[in-house]
Amino acid sequence: MHQDRPAEPGMPLDEIDTPALVIDLDAFERNLDRMARIAAAAGVAVRPHAKTHKSPVIARLQAARGAVGQCVQKVGEAEVLAWGGVADILVSNEVVGPRKLARLAALSRVCTVALCADGETGVDRAAAAAEDAGLRLTLLVEIDVGAGRCGVRPGPEAVALARRIAGSRHLRFGGLQAYHGRAQHLRSPEERDAAIAAAAAMTGEVVGDLRDIGLACAIVGGAGTGTFAREAASGVYTELQVGSYAFMDADYARNRPAPDFEHALFVLAGVMSVPRPGLAIVDCGHKGIAVDSGPPLVWQRPGVTCLGCSDEHGTLELTAEAQPLAVGQQVLLVPGHCDPTVDRHDWYVGVRHGRVECLWPVAARGAMA
Amino acid sequence: MHQDRPAEPGMPLDEIDTPALVIDLDAFERNLDRMARIAAAAGVAVRPHAKTHKSPVIARLQAARGAVGQCVQKVGEAEVLAWGGVADILVSNEVVGPRKLARLAALSRVCTVALCADGETGVDRAAAAAEDAGLRLTLLVEIDVGAGRCGVRPGPEAVALARRIAGSRHLRFGGLQAYHGRAQHLRSPEERDAAIAAAAAMTGEVVGDLRDIGLACAIVGGAGTGTFAREAASGVYTELQVGSYAFMDADYARNRPAPDFEHALFVLAGVMSVPRPGLAIVDCGHKGIAVDSGPPLVWQRPGVTCLGCSDEHGTLELTAEAQPLAVGQQVLLVPGHCDPTVDRHDWYVGVRHGRVECLWPVAARGAMA
Repeated sequence: MHQDRPAEPGMPLDEIDTPALVIDLDAFERNLDRMARIAAAAGVAVRPHAKTHKSPVIARLQAARGAVGQCVQKVGEAEVLAWGGVADILVSNEVVGPRKLARLAALSRVCTVALCADGETGVDRAAAAAEDAGLRLTLLVEIDVGAGRCGVRPGPEAVALARRIAGSRHLRFGGLQAYHGRAQHLRSPEERDAAIAAAAAMTGEVVGDLRDIGLACAIVGGAGTGTFAREAASGVYTELQVGSYAFMDADYARNRPAPDFEHALFVLAGVMSVPRPGLAIVDCGHKGIAVDSGPPLVWQRPGVTCLGCSDEHGTLELTAEAQPLAVGQQVLLVPGHCDPTVDRHDWYVGVRHGRVECLWPVAARGAMA
Repeated sequence: MHQDRPAEPGMPLDEIDTPALVIDLDAFERNLDRMARIAAAAGVAVRPHAKTHKSPVIARLQAARGAVGQCVQKVGEAEVLAWGGVADILVSNEVVGPRKLARLAALSRVCTVALCADGETGVDRAAAAAEDAGLRLTLLVEIDVGAGRCGVRPGPEAVALARRIAGSRHLRFGGLQAYHGRAQHLRSPEERDAAIAAAAAMTGEVVGDLRDIGLACAIVGGAGTGTFAREAASGVYTELQVGSYAFMDADYARNRPAPDFEHALFVLAGVMSVPRPGLAIVDCGHKGIAVDSGPPLVWQRPGVTCLGCSDEHGTLELTAEAQPLAVGQQVLLVPGHCDPTVDRHDWYVGVRHGRVECLWPVAARGAMA
């Protein structure tokens, strides 16, 4: 259930075994620097989302640039980060299973942990787990600010839930989770403006209502790579939960304008068949590169397009003007969606100036419970 | 990079930690029995495709019912199967990387191994790897019988490639790989009839041309769960490379008529949020269940439909007549596509009569190199 290391430090790029998950370290570091600079200028904290990178090593590089902690979606991810040295973790998601809550309570003895709730069952189960463990758990109320997925409606229901948390001697009220996932990939700036303006207004109102009853929101969290500048400027959000900015996937690049980050994550694939001119088949399909947000882009090969992926094969079409591809050659593919692509691999291969500089484990790969 | 065991033998179904990959053992065994019976009656061999199951345990259960060996797509899968006791392995795919070919040559010392080629580069590299290792490798020629992916054109090119293999003192000509992947999911029986009739005719012609020059095809392999009865009846194919029949996914069930196998593979998911009546969010998104062939079906819950999956969430819609779902309840989801779903998990949880009977590792999970 482990993948072999696809490379060793010092190797040239073309000796990496394919398929492999490759980071362009220069571009990646510029992305981290840029986000840190923007957030610092806006006066909001960055709490990057580890659902993208699944790596305590990357978390450390983000912390070195000022990140206040990490977000995760799953208890298993929280464990891997905590065991890898991350000191402050927010599960930006509901956790309702008693086994999972017990694990999270145990984890909160070695680092700062918070989780979200959007209903009474979640609050009561968290309280029971905290009582069992003899400690307090911090809960944020997740409000639905337009994503239409989890989250209580902003308004009296959200306030009642916050009260319920604050009223438990086993819980601590930590603030609001107000992530607008759907807004991230709205293509036009006007649509994104409108969505986040509405989300910030709703969230601000709940923050005010809570203040009126003496409940302060230590965290008001949300935002993603598609909209973060808007949340940062809103005066409502205190933490940006950005993830994809570190890698920049092909789907985010379809936003207008595209977020100002560089493609830094690739799947290196090998050409395994050239059945006829104009067609090349590579050794990576959707088991190795996620296609839920469209097929990958082919990097720096004009005239070469990925038509689609089956389980283990990617089909590339070449125009007559494209430089031909031969069996055994390699191509870099920009994933349509980085997060699930990372989750298909055990190793990041970090590359600089055409050479392998490091290997990092995708330590929380598959941590979905 | 390992997932925890989501259950232990003896547990009732509702104590399994979610999300988890669950096999209905009764249905699964009936599927295996049924395929063995059909193939035996048709007089063709079954060489199941381990790209579906990734498990030496399942390979053993198929061998106990007469399977002659296993197919794989990747060298890493071949290794896991060989190390897990499988005696006869066909890589039904091109392998062109020198490192990969060396691994395959090494493996061929402990079990029977064959691989495919669809061009001179592949043949010559396999010959070089065999020479280096001081042994002979068996190569099949892959012909394109309509899938439009890998494979040489049936006709003189295929014959020339077979000759090249047979002419190398480091290689052995093993036969033809003639899989029509696209035909598997053609919805109407007439379309599937026509596609496989054409594929069998092309393949039969190449078999004849090769016979005329003294080259026998020990293996003529192809077929999948959508069409296998046609290949079996063709008189041309000697081996059926069926995989999905063991589990039966939702997409195959959309064929008319659906293949006569039972849904035996599920992802067990837990309800984590019920933000409003008519909506339930479960703790499994497309990181845990593949959506490349559509969203999952919700098993035995009339009026409940999966609208879609994001990375970690599945969105279920309930009609007014549907039995409501509460936070903490579980649902069984039938994957749209089993193969990539299996590849997202480390453990099969085998269930019979509502209790966990066994855990099996998805041993070749992620083996994509």
